[in-house]
Amino acid sequence: MQVLGAYGQTELGHGTNIRGLETTATYDPETEEFIMNTPTLTSYKWWAGTLGKTANHCVVLAQLWTQGKCHGIYPFIVQIRDLDTHQPLPGVHVGDVGPRMGYTTADNGFLGMKNVRIPRENMPMKNAQVLKDGTFVKKDRHGKLTYGTMVFVRVTLVSDAAFYVAKAATIAVRYSAVRRQCQAKENEPELQILDYRTQQHKLFICIATAHALQLAARWLWKTFTDVLADLREGNVEKLPELHALSSCLKSVSTSDASTCVEQCRYACGGHGYMMSSNLPYIYGHAVAIRTYEGDYTVLLLQGARYLVKAWEQMEAGNRLTPTVAYLSNAVSNQQAKWENTPEGIIRAFQAVAAAKIQFCVQSIRDLMKSGKCYEDAWQLTTLQLVEAAEVHCRAVMLDTYWKENLRLTASCSDNVKRVLRQLTSLYIIYWALDRAGDLLRYTCLSEKNVNILERQYEELLAALRPNAVGLVDAFDIRDEILNSSLGAYDGHVYIRLMEEAMKSPLNVQEVDPSFHKYIRPLAKGKL
Amino acid sequence: MQVLGAYGQTELGHGTNIRGLETTATYDPETEEFIMNTPTLTSYKWWAGTLGKTANHCVVLAQLWTQGKCHGIYPFIVQIRDLDTHQPLPGVHVGDVGPRMGYTTADNGFLGMKNVRIPRENMPMKNAQVLKDGTFVKKDRHGKLTYGTMVFVRVTLVSDAAFYVAKAATIAVRYSAVRRQCQAKENEPELQILDYRTQQHKLFICIATAHALQLAARWLWKTFTDVLADLREGNVEKLPELHALSSCLKSVSTSDASTCVEQCRYACGGHGYMMSSNLPYIYGHAVAIRTYEGDYTVLLLQGARYLVKAWEQMEAGNRLTPTVAYLSNAVSNQQAKWENTPEGIIRAFQAVAAAKIQFCVQSIRDLMKSGKCYEDAWQLTTLQLVEAAEVHCRAVMLDTYWKENLRLTASCSDNVKRVLRQLTSLYIIYWALDRAGDLLRYTCLSEKNVNILERQYEELLAALRPNAVGLVDAFDIRDEILNSSLGAYDGHVYIRLMEEAMKSPLNVQEVDPSFHKYIRPLAKGKL
Repeated sequence: MQVLGAYGQTELGHGTNIRGLETTATYDPETEEFIMNTPTLTSYKWWAGTLGKTANHCVVLAQLWTQGKCHGIYPFIVQIRDLDTHQPLPGVHVGDVGPRMGYTTADNGFLGMKNVRIPRENMPMKNAQVLKDGTFVKKDRHGKLTYGTMVFVRVTLVSDAAFYVAKAATIAVRYSAVRRQCQAKENEPELQILDYRTQQHKLFICIATAHALQLAARWLWKTFTDVLADLREGNVEKLPELHALSSCLKSVSTSDASTCVEQCRYACGGHGYMMSSNLPYIYGHAVAIRTYEGDYTVLLLQGARYLVKAWEQMEAGNRLTPTVAYLSNAVSNQQAKWENTPEGIIRAFQAVAAAKIQFCVQSIRDLMKSGKCYEDAWQLTTLQLVEAAEVHCRAVMLDTYWKENLRLTASCSDNVKRVLRQLTSLYIIYWALDRAGDLLRYTCLSEKNVNILERQYEELLAALRPNAVGLVDAFDIRDEILNSSLGAYDGHVYIRLMEEAMKSPLNVQEVDPSFHKYIRPLAKGKL
Repeated sequence: MQVLGAYGQTELGHGTNIRGLETTATYDPETEEFIMNTPTLTSYKWWAGTLGKTANHCVVLAQLWTQGKCHGIYPFIVQIRDLDTHQPLPGVHVGDVGPRMGYTTADNGFLGMKNVRIPRENMPMKNAQVLKDGTFVKKDRHGKLTYGTMVFVRVTLVSDAAFYVAKAATIAVRYSAVRRQCQAKENEPELQILDYRTQQHKLFICIATAHALQLAARWLWKTFTDVLADLREGNVEKLPELHALSSCLKSVSTSDASTCVEQCRYACGGHGYMMSSNLPYIYGHAVAIRTYEGDYTVLLLQGARYLVKAWEQMEAGNRLTPTVAYLSNAVSNQQAKWENTPEGIIRAFQAVAAAKIQFCVQSIRDLMKSGKCYEDAWQLTTLQLVEAAEVHCRAVMLDTYWKENLRLTASCSDNVKRVLRQLTSLYIIYWALDRAGDLLRYTCLSEKNVNILERQYEELLAALRPNAVGLVDAFDIRDEILNSSLGAYDGHVYIRLMEEAMKSPLNVQEVDPSFHKYIRPLAKGKL
C-alpha cells in the first residue's frame, strides 16, 4: 500500500486518437533518465481515476523520444507525490478536474509535468526497450495482443450496464406496485400504476434487458477466456472478431442501459427526480459508461471495420468467423418467407444487418470509383456503417439471449421456463417492432405481420404482469445496495420519502438564515 | 412583498389524479372558518415551488366539506408562516422535500396541516361559494374555462424547451468547431470534429429542433390569444382543440428537447460530463419539464381523447377543427403517390396519424363488441393511442415549422432563405427517416424512396456544415447565460476547463485532509 497508482492516458485535448497524445518522454543518456513533459495546456493528463488527490504514482502514456527520434506512444511510471508528505514533487502540477455528472464521489484528476525526471527502468520494457545508450529496440510481438485488456474491460462494462438496469427496474417496478393513480371506474380504488399497459410497456422491457445484457456479458466472458487459451498457444486468429464484437456490445449495451434507466426514472413520475430515489445517480453512472473506455460512435465504427472485412472475405469465398457466419445466408434470408418465431425474427435481423453491410461496402466502392480515396469514402459512409454495426450487434444480442436462456433453463421447472420464455419473447418482439421499418425494407415482413407482432407483444405484457414484482425480486438486490426511497423491499415508499426529506440540510432550521438576510428586508422594502 | 405565495396541489401520494387529493377543508359555521387537514402521510402537499422555506402563504387545493357533504376540489388560501418571525404557524408542518435532479437551487416544499383554521373569505369564490351558514352554491360557469391557465403554462414550457435545445446546440456546435480528433490522412492536421458526418448527424437536427419548437410555441401562443378573444365573447368552442394540441405539444416538445440536449452532451464526449460545460444542468432542467405540469404519457392520452372524438365527428359528417381537418383527406393521402417534397412528407405524416387514429377507434369498438366497457377498451388501446397522438403532433409540428418558416423569411435575403430552408428540409427529412417504418406501413413510400431521402439528408448535412457555427451564433445567447466552459463565443475551451477545475473545492489544499486521515495510516498498515 505504499504505491498508489493512477493510469494517465487521456489528455485535456486528446481522447480517442491515442496517437495524437502530446505528452513527451525524452531519454537523456547522460543520466539514464526520461524527462517527462506536458508541453501544452491540451497535453495535460485529464480524467484519470485516483490521480487528483489519492495516487502518488501514475502510469503516463507519452510520445517516446530518443536519439532525436519519436517512436510513438509508450507507458512510463512517474512518481507524482512524496510518499511521506503526499506533496506533489517538483515539476508536477496535479489536482481534481472539477465537479462531474454521475461520478461525484470519484477522484478524477489532471496532471501537468515540467521536466520531471524518472529512471530509465520506469519504462515497462516487455514490448519495447530503450537501452542505456538510448538505442530503441522494438520486440516483434503481435500488435493485436493489446486488444486483450480492452476486451476484458468491455466485458465488465457490459455486466455493469446489466446491473444498473436491474437496479433501476427493481426500483421502478416495486414503486409501480405501491403507487396508485386514477380509478378505472367509479367507486373502485385507484389502480396500481403497474396495471396500466403504458407503464408495463415502459418497465417490462427493462427487466428483459437486464437479463439480455447479463447473458451477453457472460457469453462474451466465456468467449474471451476461450480466446485467451488460444493466445497462450500463440493463436491470435480469433482476437479481431472478439475485439469487434466487444466494441459493438459495449456501445449498444451501455446505450440501451442508459435508455432503460432513464425510462424507469420517467416511469416514477415526479418522485423519480428525487435524489433519494437513487435513480438520478444510477442514470449518471450508466450514461457515463456510454462514453468512457471508448465512445459509442467510435466503437461502433471499429466494429463496422470488421464487418466490412468479413463481407469481403465472404465475397472471396473464405470461411467466416462464427458471429458473422450468417452473412453467407444473408440473401436467402432476405427473400425467405417471414417466420414469426424467435429464430425467424433473429434470422430477419441478420438479413437486415447483412443488407446494411452490403450497402456500406457498395457505397464505399462507388465513392472510390468516383475518385475518393478509401478513407474519404469511409467517412462519407459512416452514418450507414454505425447503423450496420448496431443492427449486427442486435442480431447477436437477440441470438445470445434466446440461446443462453434455453440452455440455462433446460433443467428448470416448467413454470420458471414459461415465465423466462415470455420475457425472452417479449425482448425479441419488442426489438422487431422497434425496427419494423428495417424489417419492412429488407425482409418479407408485411404490414399484417407487424399487427400480429403488436398483438403478441401486448399479450406478453399482460401475461408478465402477475410476475413482474417476482422477477425484480429475483434480481435479489439488497436494500442497502438499491439505496432508494422508492424501491425498498418492504414497499414503504412514502415513509422513506418523508424521512429522506427531513435529512435535507434546509430542514435543520425552521427559519432559514436567508429569511433574515433577504426576505425580511424585502418585505420591509429595505433590500 | 408582505405575502409570499406558493401553489400547493400535488400531494406525496397524488399527482395526475386531482380528484384523488386527500387534503380536506371542512367548513365550521360556528366560527365561519375552514379547518384544513392533511389526514394522512400521502396527503402532505409535495413539490410546490417556494413552499418549503420561502413562502408565508399557500394556495391549497383541498376536498371541500360542508354540511356533511364533500363537494370536490377547491382552492383555499392558507397562511403558513408568521409574517414577522417566519416561524411556521401552529398545526403547520412545512419544509424542503430534499435534493432533486436538475432543480438543485429551487425551493420545493412539503406541507402538512393539522386543524389549521382559516377565515371563510380565504376561499376564492368566483366559481363556487360557501355561504356563512355552510350552504354550498356552485355557479354555472363553463368547466372548460380552467383549461385556459393550463394552456398558457404549456405554451411557456414549449418555449422553454426550445431555449434549452438552443443553449445545448450552441455549446456543442462551438465545441465541435474547436475540438480536433484524428487525422483523415497522414500528415494532415486533426479534423475539427464538426467535420465528421456522424457529429453533424447528432448536432444539426438539434439546431433545427430549436427553430421548430420556438416556432411551434409562437404559433401556439398566437392561437391561444385568438381563443382568449373568443372566450371574452363567451365562445368556448375552440378551447378543447387548443387544450388537446397544447397537451400533445408539451409532451412531444419536452421529450424531443431532452433527447436533443442529451445528444449534444454525448457529442461533447468526456467533457460533456463536466458540470462546468453546463450541459448536465441544462439536461436536468429540460428533462424535468417532461414530467411536471402533466406527465408525457398522460398528456398524450389527453390529446388522444380529442383525436378519437374528431374521428367520430368526421364519420358523422361534421366539420372538423383546423388542426384535425386533415383527417377528411386521410384515406386518399394514404393511397396517394409518394411525393418527395416537404408538403408531400407532411401529408404522409397526416396519413399515418389518420391510420393510427382509425386503428384506435376500431380497436375500442372491437373490444366493446367483445363485452368490455368503454374505459377498459380505452385502457387496452393506450399504447396505440399514445402513438397516434404523437404522430398527430409531429404532423402539426412539421406543418407549422414549414409554413411559419416560409412566412417569416418571406422578406429575407436569398441567402438567409436558402439556409433556413435547408434547415427546415433537414428537419422534415430527418423525421421522415426516423418514422420510415410508419410511412412504409401506411403510405405509398417505397424502399427506393427511403434511399433517396437518406441521400438528400446527407447532402443537407454537408450543405449546412459551413453555416453551423453561424446558425448557433444567431441564437445570440450571451456567454453569461450559456455559462459553459465548452461553449463560450471566443472558443477558449481548454483554458476555461482548467480555470473551472482550479475552482474545485478539492483543489484548495495541495494535500487533502483525507491523506492524513486514511491514506497515510493505510500505507503504514495502521488503518
